[in-house]
Amino acid sequence: MPEIYIYAVEGRTMDQKRALVKDVTDAVVRHFQVTPGDVMVQIMETPKTSKAKGGILFSDRPGEPGSPMTPKGGT
Amino acid sequence: MPEIYIYAVEGRTMDQKRALVKDVTDAVVRHFQVTPGDVMVQIMETPKTSKAKGGILFSDRPGEPGSPMTPKGGT
Amino acid sequence: MPEIYIYAVEGRTMDQKRALVKDVTDAVVRHFQVTPGDVMVQIMETPKTSKAKGGILFSDRPGEPGSPMTPKGGT
Amino acid sequence: MPEIYIYAVEGRTMDQKRALVKDVTDAVVRHFQVTPGDVMVQIMETPKTSKAKGGILFSDRPGEPGSPMTPKGGT
Amino acid sequence: MPEIYIYAVEGRTMDQKRALVKDVTDAVVRHFQVTPGDVMVQIMETPKTSKAKGGILFSDRPGEPGSPMTPKGGT
Amino acid sequence: MPEIYIYAVEGRTMDQKRALVKDVTDAVVRHFQVTPGDVMVQIMETPKTSKAKGGILFSDRPGEPGSPMTPKGGT
Repeated sequence: MPEIYIYAVEGRTMDQKRALVKDVTDAVVRHFQVTPGDVMVQIMETPKTSKAKGGILFSDRPGEPGSPMTPKGGT
Repeated sequence: MPEIYIYAVEGRTMDQKRALVKDVTDAVVRHFQVTPGDVMVQIMETPKTSKAKGGILFSDRPGEPGSPMTPKGGT
Repeated sequence: MPEIYIYAVEGRTMDQKRALVKDVTDAVVRHFQVTPGDVMVQIMETPKTSKAKGGILFSDRPGEPGSPMTPKGGT
Repeated sequence: MPEIYIYAVEGRTMDQKRALVKDVTDAVVRHFQVTPGDVMVQIMETPKTSKAKGGILFSDRPGEPGSPMTPKGGT
Repeated sequence: MPEIYIYAVEGRTMDQKRALVKDVTDAVVRHFQVTPGDVMVQIMETPKTSKAKGGILFSDRPGEPGSPMTPKGGT
Repeated sequence: MPEIYIYAVEGRTMDQKRALVKDVTDAVVRHFQVTPGDVMVQIMETPKTSKAKGGILFSDRPGEPGSPMTPKGGT
């Protein structure tokens, strides 16, 4: 109240999450005149096998392990 | 931009997901005049133990393993 | 079941929406083995004054009427 | 990518929204190693007649005009 | 915390909303061991022109005013 | 139709979830004039490492195992 949902692919560290929810909360407090205790933040992590841009799953992008676009022996 | 979220119970294969995000992206490009690179699609998979229709969890439906409505020994 | 939410800025016509929900529904039916009656689609329209990319509201982009980046008398 | 959704009751000014999406975008860029152009932020404004805390709609809180808890002639 | 979002087509009265958020809050308090003040409920109302089932917008269903499936002079 | 999404931190039992989706469904049926089969409920469970209030992740609260605010040998 406000409630903030951040959708991102998996893989961030605890320190990255900790810093992000802190700064996002501060921004909401600063601009929307609420107290920190009113602000709820959730990071919604999605596997790369379930998120796509341009119609291509993140797990299928060139360079991803197991991607059909990654050459054998490649990165 | 547009962003599309597809909520479904768990259990689809990579091929099913790959085909769906491709076709949904194409549909958005075709009808909303955007480029493929603008379209983000996420499949939000939910465990059957956390989704219900008619007030009954999917994991509790007759025939589900472990469901109180499934007779012993039956599928 | 599945449920699909499509977030887009305001301004599409009824014909565009009608065509999009039809094709998205068909794609879900085709790839996720469900019947059309199981598929719910919602278009979540957001005003340009409430959506941003790159930290800039869509209503503030150059060329938008009222945008601080649009020169006076310009489009 | 990331996509951020901020749910709040209606009533903030354009300046408040402009400042918030800017600072939230900066926070995501800083901590999640993405470029500003990758960050989409939406403010989802909800009428006070559709949002509740503690089981009480915001529009029914004491002091709100039209609230059953606001005394006649009151604020 | 918990946060509950209820998506429905437009058209419910204030009394219906008031009663629903009250009972949903009570259910969450009863079963998830939280206090009422922790529970946030939002009703997300969608126009019939933006929600579809079976690939058909609610506003296009037979009987809806303006629907192409409603005979002239019909309900 | 309606669709209800309940966001909560992980850790409720199957019995708690089963009871909650039942009572929430009943409340929607009672107040929004729909049939139970129309009501879809999803519980969206979030790890404590991804949800914050007041800018502090739930996993970092005093008393949580591994929290920097929990004294060594503490609860």
